[in-house]
Amino acid sequence: MARIVMKFGGTSVADLDRIRNVAARVKREVDAGNEVAVVVSAMAGVTNQLVAWCQNLSPLHDAREYDTVVATGEQVTSGLTAIALQEIGVEARSWQGWQIPLRTDAAHGKARIDSIAGEELIRRMGLGQVAVVAGFQGVAPDNRVATLGRGGSDTSAVALAAALKADRCDIYTDVDGVYTTDPRIVAKARKLGKIAYEEMLELASVGAKVLQTRSVELAMKERVRVQVLSSFEGGNLLGSDLPGTLVVDEDEIVEKEIVAGIAYSRDEAKVTVRRVPDRPGIAAAIFGPLAGAGVNVDMIVQNVSADGTTDMTFTLGRSDLPRARKTLDDNLASIGFAEIVTDMNVAKISVVGVGMRSHAGVANTMFRTLADKGINIQVISTSEIKVSVLIAADYTELAVRALHSAYGLDAA
Amino acid sequence: MARIVMKFGGTSVADLDRIRNVAARVKREVDAGNEVAVVVSAMAGVTNQLVAWCQNLSPLHDAREYDTVVATGEQVTSGLTAIALQEIGVEARSWQGWQIPLRTDAAHGKARIDSIAGEELIRRMGLGQVAVVAGFQGVAPDNRVATLGRGGSDTSAVALAAALKADRCDIYTDVDGVYTTDPRIVAKARKLGKIAYEEMLELASVGAKVLQTRSVELAMKERVRVQVLSSFEGGNLLGSDLPGTLVVDEDEIVEKEIVAGIAYSRDEAKVTVRRVPDRPGIAAAIFGPLAGAGVNVDMIVQNVSADGTTDMTFTLGRSDLPRARKTLDDNLASIGFAEIVTDMNVAKISVVGVGMRSHAGVANTMFRTLADKGINIQVISTSEIKVSVLIAADYTELAVRALHSAYGLDAA
Repeated sequence: MARIVMKFGGTSVADLDRIRNVAARVKREVDAGNEVAVVVSAMAGVTNQLVAWCQNLSPLHDAREYDTVVATGEQVTSGLTAIALQEIGVEARSWQGWQIPLRTDAAHGKARIDSIAGEELIRRMGLGQVAVVAGFQGVAPDNRVATLGRGGSDTSAVALAAALKADRCDIYTDVDGVYTTDPRIVAKARKLGKIAYEEMLELASVGAKVLQTRSVELAMKERVRVQVLSSFEGGNLLGSDLPGTLVVDEDEIVEKEIVAGIAYSRDEAKVTVRRVPDRPGIAAAIFGPLAGAGVNVDMIVQNVSADGTTDMTFTLGRSDLPRARKTLDDNLASIGFAEIVTDMNVAKISVVGVGMRSHAGVANTMFRTLADKGINIQVISTSEIKVSVLIAADYTELAVRALHSAYGLDAA
Repeated sequence: MARIVMKFGGTSVADLDRIRNVAARVKREVDAGNEVAVVVSAMAGVTNQLVAWCQNLSPLHDAREYDTVVATGEQVTSGLTAIALQEIGVEARSWQGWQIPLRTDAAHGKARIDSIAGEELIRRMGLGQVAVVAGFQGVAPDNRVATLGRGGSDTSAVALAAALKADRCDIYTDVDGVYTTDPRIVAKARKLGKIAYEEMLELASVGAKVLQTRSVELAMKERVRVQVLSSFEGGNLLGSDLPGTLVVDEDEIVEKEIVAGIAYSRDEAKVTVRRVPDRPGIAAAIFGPLAGAGVNVDMIVQNVSADGTTDMTFTLGRSDLPRARKTLDDNLASIGFAEIVTDMNVAKISVVGVGMRSHAGVANTMFRTLADKGINIQVISTSEIKVSVLIAADYTELAVRALHSAYGLDAA
């Protein structure tokens, strides 16, 4: 017997038949003797419709009213799911954020969870009642509905699992787990049985969007064991052997792979600021204004100086490029550069794994593998558990496949 | 300067353009120096969709979950209306039932309002903030959302007007007031400037469905001045002379008409139970089982006895006829009738007016007018302010037109 939180996203509750399917899945866990809380998103498409209405009425709408409108999507699903559960004989009731209460801070539209009063839910779950919690929402200090921002239902689920001291938080998605890389690019990609929180964070931040980054951070902080699994294969929960990917503390992973996975992102742009004066404070002169303009800079490389000037290269999200360019032009006087060169035709490839902390040579294997394929590395950046390189976008698939083989990740 | 409640139904907020139109109307009242609370229904069609989902998942769904789902319709409209008001420079905020709080009893799905805490709303309205209240919903003693049943938004508005001690409750509908009779039948029907609560109740109960009966009862009890007016004519609120119909205490009506209006209902059926024993308790033997079966009996006539038996005739809603017939057949032994004769081809015509309390001859005028047109009266029933007759349905329009003229109601 375990206490589990099950979270179902918008596509898993997109219509009444899928809600019935969700209810059937929950029933299996209840029948197996588990105490269950369910977190649901809005039916697919509903949130977008509600957001569009707010936008249409006023582009600069009041975030508190936006929250009032948008949170209804999850409220509807929670009530319908409770009805579907009752219909198949499972005791259930819906919970809105203000009823639990799930308290947030005052940042309407992108609130953070402050506390969850789990006692009453735990008591009822102990009596066999399934708690169906509306995801994505809570109640702010002003006693008004607050939403957690897009994808917030994952965060709701993890936070609820922490508050309920749940043994596991199962996140049902449209993929059946976390893979060593994108299976659309590498046919031999393998599903990971377990992955460490830190690895999941690095993979998420470079484009493997399975879980919201924020929910993984929270899971890591609260030590919530998260399982990613598919809501679309009927047989998934039949056996005792759960087939998803568990996101856990690295201590739980006995057989650590040196490299857990290869991630890539094509949503990158490269900017080179040519011939800036090589003086103390030049980095601050460039990146201060960019930060002020809300431009999120990722990799940064400063070349060795020659003749008193240097080149500064950095990457950023492609959509931020026009704003970055304008910001730099506006600050030409204080920076003093010769020209700005931009390149949208780049991709970031990352090798991620907690095992590389204790293994030398991971970066070197990456560089040699890419060199063997004739792929030029433009920028390099490293963290404790990740090595990232920027390459020409045309070589993305080739690079990912070659690295996947080089690190021994290919399925047999 | 006045304090007013403005209520907009589903067709008045059916899409974003209409919500903008509502906001513009509210702004005019605010600009005129009034303190305003707005009560909104769900956008047209939304409630039906939500109800259908609940029904589809479980015909016998939990009323508490039904309320959770269905109340979101009004929540959405309240947020959107607040945004639309803010966009045109009117300070506004939305209020859900649980936030006010508007407390109801525990009868989920058809709850009655217990209390409304109006102080905070009054304070904010005094500071110029418009309160946009989600109609149709409140919070039950179990701290869960409760809905008031279909048409409950009218009741929300009247109850709010009472709690806020509002000078007036304006109900915006798809008609522009209350008429002396149905203008589709009588071209010379006149819009009434004022009508007494009691008259409105009698008109509503015989088919002139402008306001929910329950909201009129509440308005009468709480002495709330209700105005019925159209949300579809742009010029309505421009002048100082409001063109709707005021529903008020009869003392406010200085020039009382003897007859305020002629109502009709074709949703009637007539049942005659032939040759029942003329003994004490026979009425109870017939109408007891019918009441037990939930059949709502309207007019009742017992003929004079002949040879120890009598005929009992009554009317009821047409949809109740099969159930009534089966109930009587099931109780043949205890009643002891010869046969049951039913007639669906009937209509009820009613003459309504508080003035008839002090005027003799109102009923007689009705009988003579119908006789002059050769219309046979099948059943008669009277109340203090109403005379109703049952006639063959084919004569409905002829009877209504003739009576409208006979009582001097025709427009010049």
